[in-house]
Amino acid sequence: MNELDKKLTAFFISDGTGITVEMLGHSLLAQFDQVIPEKVTIPFIDSPQSAKNAVKRINSAYIRDGHRPIILSTLVDPKIAGIMQEANALYLDCFQIFIKKIESELDLNASHISGRSHAAQNTDYSKRIDAINYALLCDDGQGSKHLDNADVILIGVSRCGKTPTCLFLALQYGIRAANYPLIPEDFEEQSLPKTLRNFKDKLFGLTILPDRLHRIRQERRPNSEYASIENCKHEVRSAEALIEKEKIPLIDTTTRSIEEVSTVIRQRPQLKTKLMN
Amino acid sequence: MNELDKKLTAFFISDGTGITVEMLGHSLLAQFDQVIPEKVTIPFIDSPQSAKNAVKRINSAYIRDGHRPIILSTLVDPKIAGIMQEANALYLDCFQIFIKKIESELDLNASHISGRSHAAQNTDYSKRIDAINYALLCDDGQGSKHLDNADVILIGVSRCGKTPTCLFLALQYGIRAANYPLIPEDFEEQSLPKTLRNFKDKLFGLTILPDRLHRIRQERRPNSEYASIENCKHEVRSAEALIEKEKIPLIDTTTRSIEEVSTVIRQRPQLKTKLMN
Repeated sequence: MNELDKKLTAFFISDGTGITVEMLGHSLLAQFDQVIPEKVTIPFIDSPQSAKNAVKRINSAYIRDGHRPIILSTLVDPKIAGIMQEANALYLDCFQIFIKKIESELDLNASHISGRSHAAQNTDYSKRIDAINYALLCDDGQGSKHLDNADVILIGVSRCGKTPTCLFLALQYGIRAANYPLIPEDFEEQSLPKTLRNFKDKLFGLTILPDRLHRIRQERRPNSEYASIENCKHEVRSAEALIEKEKIPLIDTTTRSIEEVSTVIRQRPQLKTKLMN
Repeated sequence: MNELDKKLTAFFISDGTGITVEMLGHSLLAQFDQVIPEKVTIPFIDSPQSAKNAVKRINSAYIRDGHRPIILSTLVDPKIAGIMQEANALYLDCFQIFIKKIESELDLNASHISGRSHAAQNTDYSKRIDAINYALLCDDGQGSKHLDNADVILIGVSRCGKTPTCLFLALQYGIRAANYPLIPEDFEEQSLPKTLRNFKDKLFGLTILPDRLHRIRQERRPNSEYASIENCKHEVRSAEALIEKEKIPLIDTTTRSIEEVSTVIRQRPQLKTKLMN
């Protein structure tokens, strides 16, 4: 396909939510910057009828686009996968090929039952819900008396990315993450807020470039002292000095995504055993 | 491997956060219920040196376990992937094989640059942060005056799963999801809270089995009227009747994960264009 103006549709097909295949598909297609295909996720393909309907949609896209679509699939049931493969498309199977190789490695058969990797009502599920409630309870310095239950406590200046990171750690991994803002009083004293001093091994510092912090705060409180570039510079410099002085690990969120920041935090030894299911 | 007591380690290797390959790996290994391998995610393998260190860890696991480990990898750089393949393990490549097939389908070369699929500072990133702030602002019936900015408004009885779902929709997809509790006053009047009446096309109902709601509320407020099974039955029945009467779509969260509930909600036509990046 050298005519790059040709339209192309990518379908992400799953018997579950499709989140895994969608993430894999986005990474794969990001490798082809020149082509921007339309991306369609079709979740819950868990019956022959739903597979047949999906095949119809895919074949329509072929006719509409003038180029056969790309299918990425994580279907577990070989029968349903077989139906999908009848579509007029490039079919990329992201499940069966690996299952076969693992089967022969382990000398075991896979169950081939559509597993629900996010299934509710298991221990991990309750742990995640519990962690979300915890993150909300202990957001922005609230819930101080619950800090002994924290797996990790994020500290840093206001609006440096603490809350989204805590919520992500909770939702994705069931990690109980509290967050506590560093404020001008802490900088004047050049010491940690009293509440935090007993939990030094749980602390993780976030920081951010003053320019970016300024832009974020401007949106929230335009032209305030709080948002001014001078104040942002002062707060960031003071927070970094304090965090370094206390020998607390520190990560700059400026050019990192929530996922990247969370992954760095998760490398802490005490969090490593906390695995997503 | 018929001796099922043999230990086996699975490594999930990525040049980024490893979240995608970890999710894929968990789904794949869930197919082998009999064997419970130890799972280790090694993120940020983005240099020959970090790859060599990972190979060492993997080879140590081989010696320790007495069975070669399984590697699942989404490495983009063929050179770094080449180093990983030297490990004494079953190497399952979840990236290159698909890239090659897409390259030949599109008659284009992939960039082979480690893409950061969660990269910060792009539009989607700001949209997600914005959506998280929105979900927090409009949680539990707060922020009524901002409801016209909602993409979706979840309604249902207290503790049926609205908040985690809103946060997931925000974090994963940048969807602005508000939530609004249905309370006894609404049931008496058998009508929607006034605030919601102008936004009927944005509403989505969540419900839950009374038994499970009772257990969840018991943990929060043990032996309260609020948590009593009779009250839970009454609230759920009334909420379902109201939601049905108003012809609002409804989903039962009892046996569904946050991901599954979010995926169903995302099928609403007005949300379909909101894609994760």
